[in-house]
Amino acid sequence: MASTLNGISLWEERAQDKRRRILSQVPSEFIHQELTHSLEDVSSVQDIPSKYLSPTELATKIYSAVEVLNAFTHRAAIAHRLLHCCLDVPYHASLVRAKELDEYLEKTGNTIGPLHGLPISVKDQCRLIGTETTCGSIYPLGNPDTDDAVVVKILKDAGAVIFAKTSLSIGCMWGETVNNILGRACNPFNRTFSCGGSSGGEGALIGFHASPLGISSDLGGSVRSPSAYQGLCGLRPTSGRIPYYRMLNSMEGQQTILSVAGPMATTAEAVELFTKIVVDTRPWMLDPITSGRKLRIGVLEWDDICLPQPPIRNALKIVAKALKAAGHELVPWKLDTNRAVELVLRVMCEVGRATYGVGLRSRWRPNTLLESWDLSMECLDFRASVLKQWHETARDGLPEMDAFLAPVNPAVAPRHGDYSKVRYFAYTASVNIPRLPRLTIPVGFVDPKMDLADETSLTKDAEGNPLPPPTCERDETIRRKFDPETYKGNAGDATGGGEKI
Amino acid sequence: MASTLNGISLWEERAQDKRRRILSQVPSEFIHQELTHSLEDVSSVQDIPSKYLSPTELATKIYSAVEVLNAFTHRAAIAHRLLHCCLDVPYHASLVRAKELDEYLEKTGNTIGPLHGLPISVKDQCRLIGTETTCGSIYPLGNPDTDDAVVVKILKDAGAVIFAKTSLSIGCMWGETVNNILGRACNPFNRTFSCGGSSGGEGALIGFHASPLGISSDLGGSVRSPSAYQGLCGLRPTSGRIPYYRMLNSMEGQQTILSVAGPMATTAEAVELFTKIVVDTRPWMLDPITSGRKLRIGVLEWDDICLPQPPIRNALKIVAKALKAAGHELVPWKLDTNRAVELVLRVMCEVGRATYGVGLRSRWRPNTLLESWDLSMECLDFRASVLKQWHETARDGLPEMDAFLAPVNPAVAPRHGDYSKVRYFAYTASVNIPRLPRLTIPVGFVDPKMDLADETSLTKDAEGNPLPPPTCERDETIRRKFDPETYKGNAGDATGGGEKI
Repeated sequence: MASTLNGISLWEERAQDKRRRILSQVPSEFIHQELTHSLEDVSSVQDIPSKYLSPTELATKIYSAVEVLNAFTHRAAIAHRLLHCCLDVPYHASLVRAKELDEYLEKTGNTIGPLHGLPISVKDQCRLIGTETTCGSIYPLGNPDTDDAVVVKILKDAGAVIFAKTSLSIGCMWGETVNNILGRACNPFNRTFSCGGSSGGEGALIGFHASPLGISSDLGGSVRSPSAYQGLCGLRPTSGRIPYYRMLNSMEGQQTILSVAGPMATTAEAVELFTKIVVDTRPWMLDPITSGRKLRIGVLEWDDICLPQPPIRNALKIVAKALKAAGHELVPWKLDTNRAVELVLRVMCEVGRATYGVGLRSRWRPNTLLESWDLSMECLDFRASVLKQWHETARDGLPEMDAFLAPVNPAVAPRHGDYSKVRYFAYTASVNIPRLPRLTIPVGFVDPKMDLADETSLTKDAEGNPLPPPTCERDETIRRKFDPETYKGNAGDATGGGEKI
Repeated sequence: MASTLNGISLWEERAQDKRRRILSQVPSEFIHQELTHSLEDVSSVQDIPSKYLSPTELATKIYSAVEVLNAFTHRAAIAHRLLHCCLDVPYHASLVRAKELDEYLEKTGNTIGPLHGLPISVKDQCRLIGTETTCGSIYPLGNPDTDDAVVVKILKDAGAVIFAKTSLSIGCMWGETVNNILGRACNPFNRTFSCGGSSGGEGALIGFHASPLGISSDLGGSVRSPSAYQGLCGLRPTSGRIPYYRMLNSMEGQQTILSVAGPMATTAEAVELFTKIVVDTRPWMLDPITSGRKLRIGVLEWDDICLPQPPIRNALKIVAKALKAAGHELVPWKLDTNRAVELVLRVMCEVGRATYGVGLRSRWRPNTLLESWDLSMECLDFRASVLKQWHETARDGLPEMDAFLAPVNPAVAPRHGDYSKVRYFAYTASVNIPRLPRLTIPVGFVDPKMDLADETSLTKDAEGNPLPPPTCERDETIRRKFDPETYKGNAGDATGGGEKI
C-alpha cells in the first residue's frame, strides 16, 4: 500500500508504480533483464536488437499485423530498457486491434485503410483510450483516457495500431527529455548524449528503429530538435494543419503561439504519407461542393428559444422549397445557440471594459489570464461539439450535410429604439465560435399580403398552424413586435446559408 | 479655435469637426443641401438619387474610372445627407487614382487588375492611407493612417478605388450603427428602421446602391445583420481566410473568437468576385512548389548571435551545394531570432507558472488579460515583418524565395548535463511565431575527419577561413563545446528546410 498524504499517494511512489507498469503488458519473452539504462556508456546501442530479434522479426517480407506488432513491441521493449524512452506500451489493446485487422484482411481481402497494421508511436500528449496521458507530469496518473485525440482517431481509422507512448519533458517545456516519472531519456547513438526534447522519447524510439513513425508536437522546436539529434525527418506543419484537439499540454488555452502536431520518421516518405493521410481526411471539414451534385442541406428552422417572425419563417420556407425543387435533400439541424451566446458574451466582457451595451453580466472583474485560457478551451470544446454534430448528419450510407440554412436574426430590421427589445444575436453568433463561414442571401421584402401576423395568442400562425408557445419574454416580445403594415418593404428577412467553404 | 482640456479638444467639438469634414472633399455640385437626415420619415429614399443624377451617371455603358468614381461619389454624398452612413469620402485621393487608372488604360491598352476603376467602400475599421480610421471612436480623430490594411492594399493593387469609409457602432460592439461622431445611421428603405450593425454604414450605402461592393467584418454577426436588413449578400468567411492585418478593432489581441473580414454587395457575383480576387493573391503566402521548376532557396547561415558548430556549418554547405547542383538558386536570408526568442519566452512565462527551466525572466507577476492581448499583437507584428521580409526576396523580376534552409540548432546533441550551457532555441522558435511549417532533414553524422574543430582563437575555422568573433558568452560556449572525438557519430547536424507548404 502506497503511503498517502490526504489520500493521495506521494509522487515518488506514484512515479515508481508507473515505471513498473510501463512494460507490464509486454510478453515476457520481449523483456531482457540484462539490458539496462545508462547515462555514461558512450557506445552506440543500435546493434543490440539484432542479438535478440529472431530472423522472422528482422527479415523483410510480408507479415501479418500481429507479427509486425510483435516485432516492433519487442524492439520498443529493448529500447525502453536501454534508453528509458516509453511511458506506455499498451500491448493488450494493440494485440486485439492487430488480430482484428488480420481477420478483416483474411475475410474481405481488403485493408481497412492506408495504414493497415502499421504500428505507430505517439508522444505522451496524445490521448489514447485506456492509457494514462501524462504530458510528463505525475498528476494524470491513475486516470485513463476515455477519448482518443483527434489525430489518434484519424490514424486508427486509417488502420494504424498505436503501440507505444513516448517520454517527453514536463509539460513539453524543455529541450531535453527529463521528467519525474522516468528521469532522463537517452540518445541511442551514444547514451551520454541528449535525445533532445520535448519529444525526445519519440526521437530515441524512432532513432532506434523501434517505431516506423511517431506523432509529436512543436511549439518552439519540439519536433525538430529530437529529429536533428537522432538524424530523423520531422515536420512541424503550418499551425492548425494537423488536428490538435484532445492533445494534453501545458498552457492550454494559450492562443498566441500555437503548438502543432507533426510526424517524425526515419524517411521523408513516411512523413509525407502521414501528412497526406491526415490532410485527406479533411480534418477542417472542407468539402468543395461539386456543381450539379445533389446536396444535403441542414435546415435550422428555429433554435427553440426565439421563434423567427412570420416573414423570416416564410423566407426560410421559400428557400427550402427551391432547394428541394432543385433536387437537394433537406435535413433538420439544430445548434446550441444558448451556449454559443453565453460564450460570446463571456469573451466580449472578459476584460471588463467591453461595455458597449453588452452589460448582461453582473461580474465586471476582468478575467485573469488563466481564466481566459480556460474560456478559450470551452470555446474549443463548443467548436468540437458542432463539428461532431455536423459529422453525425452522415447516416444510412448518406454523406454528412454540405451546408445549412438558418435565419440571420429572428426579427426583421427593427425601428430605431426597438433594437434592444428584439436584440437576439444567437443565430449569427453561433457560427463565430466554430469559425465557420456563412453567406447571407436576400430572399425578399416584407409583403403584408403574404407575411401575416401570428394569432395574438401566439400559439397559432395566421393560417391556424400550431406554433410552439413562447419560451421567454424575449421570444414573446420578438413575436409581438412584428406588424405587417409597419414593416412592409423591410428586407430583414434574408436567410443565411452556412456553407463549408 | 476648439475649447480644450489639457490641450485636447472636447469630444463633442472633435466629433462636430469630423462631421464637417466628411463631405468636405466632395465636389460642391454633388452636395444637395435640401437633402436632410431623418429618423422619423418612413418613406423609402431609394428613388431620390434619380432626381439628382444626370443621364450619363444613370445610364449603363462603358465609362472612364473618373466618371464611375464621380457617379458613385455623387450618390454616396446623397446617401450620407439622408442616412448619415459615411465617415470619410476621400475624393481627392480617389480622383488622383482614377485619373492614373484612365491614363494607364489609355496608354497601355491594359487594365491594372481585375477591379480596374471599381469604386469600393470600406467599413471605417480598414486603415486607408491619408484617412482617419475611427472604428466608431473619437480618439483616433486627427491621426491619419500611414499604412493601408492588407485587404485594402490587395484591393488597390487589383485596381479598385477606395472611395468611401462607412459608419459603424462603437468598437464594432453593437447591432445598430450608433456612435458619438455621427449619431445614428438609417435604413434607406425606411429611415425609421435600423440599418443594423456593426457594419450598418456599409449596409445603408450599398443598400442605397451608392457602392457596388463593401468590405466589412464579422465577429458576432456584423456582416450578416446589415446584409439581412438591407437585402444584400454578405459573406462571413472562415476565420483567417481574408487578411485582417491592420484593421482597427476593439479587443485587439483577443484570439478566442476571431473577427473576420468579409464582403457585402447587392449580388452574389460581386461577393464571389471579391473573395476570389483576394484568395488568388495567396495572402497566406502559400505557393505549391511545382516539381521541376527552378527554386529560389534562402540560406540562413547563422543568425549573427550564435554561430553553428563546424559539423552544422558543413551540413548546411552540403545541402546548399546539392541544391545549387540541381539548378536551384540560393539567396541569403536572415531572421530576427533575438526578437523571436524574446517573444516566445514572454508568452511561455506570461502566467508566471511556466517555470520548467525557462526562468530567464525576473518579473513573475502574471500578465493581465490586456497585457496578454498586447503581447498577441506584438507577435502578430513579428509575423507580418517576417512575411514582408519574405516578399522582399522578390527582386529584379525574380519571384520571392520558395523556402529557406537553416540550422535546427547551433550545437549538435549535447552530452547530458551540457544542455543548459549550449541551449539556444532561436533557430527553431523563430518560425513558430509566424506559424510557418518547417521540415527537419538528416544530412549525416559527425565525422572527425571532416568536421574539424575551429582554431582555439575562434576567429578562424580549421582551414584558416575567418570566422566572426564570438558575440556573447553563449556563442563562445557553444563554439568551444564542440569536439570532433567526443561527438563523432552524433546526428545533431541535420538542417531544416523551412518550406511554404
